Amino acid sequence: MDTNTVELTPVVPPGKDQQAAGVGILLQIMMLVLSFILGHVLRRHRFYYLPEASASLLIGLIVGGLANISNTETSIRAWFNFHEEFFFLFLLPPIIFQSGFSLAPKPFFSNFGAIVTFAILGTFISAIVTGLLVYLGGVMYLIYQLPLVECLMFGALISATDPVTVLSIFQELGTDMNLYALVFGESVLNDAMAISLYRTMSLVKSNSSGQNFFLIVVRFLETFVGSMSAGVGVGFTSALLFKYAGLDIDNLQNLECCLFVLFPYFSYMLAEGLGLSGIVSILFTGMVMKHYAFSNLSENSQKFVAAFFHLISSLAETFVFIYMGFDIAMEQHSWSHLGFIFFSIIFIGLARAANVFTCAYLLNLVRPAQRQIPVTHQKALWYSGLRGAMAFALALQSIHDLPEGHGQTIFTATTAIVVLTVLLIGGSTGTMLETLHVVGDTHDGHLNDSFETNNGYVAPYDDEESSSSGNRLKMRLKEFHRSAASFSSLDRNYLTPFFTTQTGDRDDNDDSNAEDSLLRSRREGFH
Amino acid sequence: MDTNTVELTPVVPPGKDQQAAGVGILLQIMMLVLSFILGHVLRRHRFYYLPEASASLLIGLIVGGLANISNTETSIRAWFNFHEEFFFLFLLPPIIFQSGFSLAPKPFFSNFGAIVTFAILGTFISAIVTGLLVYLGGVMYLIYQLPLVECLMFGALISATDPVTVLSIFQELGTDMNLYALVFGESVLNDAMAISLYRTMSLVKSNSSGQNFFLIVVRFLETFVGSMSAGVGVGFTSALLFKYAGLDIDNLQNLECCLFVLFPYFSYMLAEGLGLSGIVSILFTGMVMKHYAFSNLSENSQKFVAAFFHLISSLAETFVFIYMGFDIAMEQHSWSHLGFIFFSIIFIGLARAANVFTCAYLLNLVRPAQRQIPVTHQKALWYSGLRGAMAFALALQSIHDLPEGHGQTIFTATTAIVVLTVLLIGGSTGTMLETLHVVGDTHDGHLNDSFETNNGYVAPYDDEESSSSGNRLKMRLKEFHRSAASFSSLDRNYLTPFFTTQTGDRDDNDDSNAEDSLLRSRREGFH
Repeated sequence: MDTNTVELTPVVPPGKDQQAAGVGILLQIMMLVLSFILGHVLRRHRFYYLPEASASLLIGLIVGGLANISNTETSIRAWFNFHEEFFFLFLLPPIIFQSGFSLAPKPFFSNFGAIVTFAILGTFISAIVTGLLVYLGGVMYLIYQLPLVECLMFGALISATDPVTVLSIFQELGTDMNLYALVFGESVLNDAMAISLYRTMSLVKSNSSGQNFFLIVVRFLETFVGSMSAGVGVGFTSALLFKYAGLDIDNLQNLECCLFVLFPYFSYMLAEGLGLSGIVSILFTGMVMKHYAFSNLSENSQKFVAAFFHLISSLAETFVFIYMGFDIAMEQHSWSHLGFIFFSIIFIGLARAANVFTCAYLLNLVRPAQRQIPVTHQKALWYSGLRGAMAFALALQSIHDLPEGHGQTIFTATTAIVVLTVLLIGGSTGTMLETLHVVGDTHDGHLNDSFETNNGYVAPYDDEESSSSGNRLKMRLKEFHRSAASFSSLDRNYLTPFFTTQTGDRDDNDDSNAEDSLLRSRREGFH
Repeated sequence: MDTNTVELTPVVPPGKDQQAAGVGILLQIMMLVLSFILGHVLRRHRFYYLPEASASLLIGLIVGGLANISNTETSIRAWFNFHEEFFFLFLLPPIIFQSGFSLAPKPFFSNFGAIVTFAILGTFISAIVTGLLVYLGGVMYLIYQLPLVECLMFGALISATDPVTVLSIFQELGTDMNLYALVFGESVLNDAMAISLYRTMSLVKSNSSGQNFFLIVVRFLETFVGSMSAGVGVGFTSALLFKYAGLDIDNLQNLECCLFVLFPYFSYMLAEGLGLSGIVSILFTGMVMKHYAFSNLSENSQKFVAAFFHLISSLAETFVFIYMGFDIAMEQHSWSHLGFIFFSIIFIGLARAANVFTCAYLLNLVRPAQRQIPVTHQKALWYSGLRGAMAFALALQSIHDLPEGHGQTIFTATTAIVVLTVLLIGGSTGTMLETLHVVGDTHDGHLNDSFETNNGYVAPYDDEESSSSGNRLKMRLKEFHRSAASFSSLDRNYLTPFFTTQTGDRDDNDDSNAEDSLLRSRREGFH
């Protein structure tokens, strides 16, 4: 494929660059089309050992390898290098926005405490554990030695798990909804967490004078809370605009959709422009816009924007894997540190175990008996930690951020981890789910119960007292749950009536068909 | 607005570039939103002196001017430079595709001969006349002297008229459908013609050894016919894919839409990769896909893709004007050749007159009495020749293609012409249409007649013989008309049944409500 198109390139000076761009983009489109068709065929034949994302990655790797062997011109090659800027500014926003936008609010909020714990505390644990293990390994001359800050940066970037592949299989096979919500929520939020941690660490590295742990935490919280507020603010602004601008009449559909489509991007760029995290911001904009602004649109526009975001995000997702595969095949790697790669794979496994089982233990302390996270779910969650484009993009960035050699080592290790986890974990998720007996909606029965419980969540268990040392912690966590429950009444009584054209009673109806909305969200979610 | 965001930029090394990008893109989104809202308000108050495109251009000019005065950082500035590559690869394709896609086939085909004459012969005349006048002006020391080839390149690039502004006003006010079809068709096709001419000329310039006129024409025809075939080929391929792939079932809507959306871009990049003209190719892909592939989609997907292309193209259109305005305000101009600017404005007016009135004369020779192009229409067509983004982008490219100083002069002159024509002609089109009494669908009565006539177009006038010198020409032109009519039966009997799931009789029904479909196309067309 590649050699043909290259031979067609005559030597024409004026439109030369444009022609190279044409060939480059043409190849990319062909790979995209191929991925979509291959993915469709594989899905139709229920072949779960090669999910769409793995197929896209493989296509990228193969075509990249061919382009590497043949004498592809440099001007065409340039179109296949993975540009972090392009990834962060154009590919990532639609993917993350769609995550927030397609989130079914009920199952997400009923597991909100758990998701936040896994995403924030868990990712923090995972990053620190990985970083420390890599550092200790270096100190003990087991692997290539890196400074502590750089180890922590590696820990942060490698803690970003990718939602795309695992979730698409979860959807296909059908699994417990609480597990689904946990994996979905965790993997979306931990991208945001990992990028914030990485940025904070690299900030610490550049101003190495004040390596005060307290300042790091403050800086991190600043970024996270600031980005979240920006995202929520933009979301509420859009809701008010669509409520009062009166654009929901027939011949203004295009204007309405144009504006609706610009808001998420606005939120992302606002956060980036303020030096905050765009992806945290756009994630919350997605959730707020779906919950409030979306219902203010005309019916046609609702259908359109839902399909639009789905389309754009699936194009971006598929493209990310192709792009990554291609770049991996073309990039210079330093394979001199095979030990580093080998041990870091073991370390991330350990770190993810520390993350999942610690958080699950803490959560089970406060959860009522019928809502305990079962061990099978914990194992499934541990297994679902495959690394994708976010880790790859941050690793690529680390080449610029770190001294010669260090960044290269981290990048090569990350590349190896991404390829291995996407292909192996991606291909075996179906088997894993079956082995753990979490396939099929067998646990559906208690789903509605748990929603009921959730609405009156705090009251029945508040008086129950445990005498263990986890007591204070338990109290704190319960307070958090209480605030989550009060949010739900705040939403019903104040936010929904204020920001949407609906009255508050809509939410009550939702409770009864929460299952429907979760099913819908599955279909709308990552394909 | 600008100074504020700039002050917010703290000095943070790691995400610095990304932050600058964030601020840059944020400003662009704000301008986009502003343009959409301003355009909407102006339209609602029926204020035609500042059409949306002019408003966008002004917003860009003003914000660019402010950014120029304030000390905007270079990294942010970089986001506002007009990159021809970005324009040609990402902004132009959706605009041109939408032109082809929203073309109502009937009125377009009934005026096909006229449109092609204006677009190909007319643009050729216009480019040559402008080029020669500029060259002669230089020889006579009236203006800055440029070599003949460069004059012809200037002639070619300045002959690209912009469809956006004028058409949006035509739509608002309502005008004769034949006039609308002529202006629409001419301005879309002449972009393709102008870019092909420009490329051919710049090719001649770089291989200055063989400046054989015959070779130029062959090279031009090669490009044009090759691009058209590529476009039509891709369109037909997509039609067959959607006819046989069986994607029009409910839960595959996303896949169907993804593939449909990728085809136009594929066509564009295929042509560019082969060294042909992407915009000619994508224009024909648009026409073919609308006519054949579109009807093979499921009903939901049809609604979606129509809205999708409309959305994308209106975002791109509005952005082009903002982007252009911003760049004009930021760019270095050489105002030392005011005479060049002044005379070239006069020359393009003369060249457009030569184009329109010559072609109209030729057309009226072969058209039957009731289908003559009236003088008022000719005047309206002459007046509608405002220059937009295509001329601007080619002029920007000429800075690289031409020696120091020459390109700069051409660029400044083009910039001045673009700003003047967009603001003056754009603002006065309403008045012009009223003065010429072509406002309102007053001529609608004979529209259906002319369609009837068109179907049996050749027969009644074939025996009629004129004794003038235009005789041979007339015969040739009639032959052309005959081929157009036979295309229509080829379409009905072979193409439509082969490429779509419909039977051939659909076309006959279309005749009766051709007016409906034109009205629909107006709504779907350039907003």
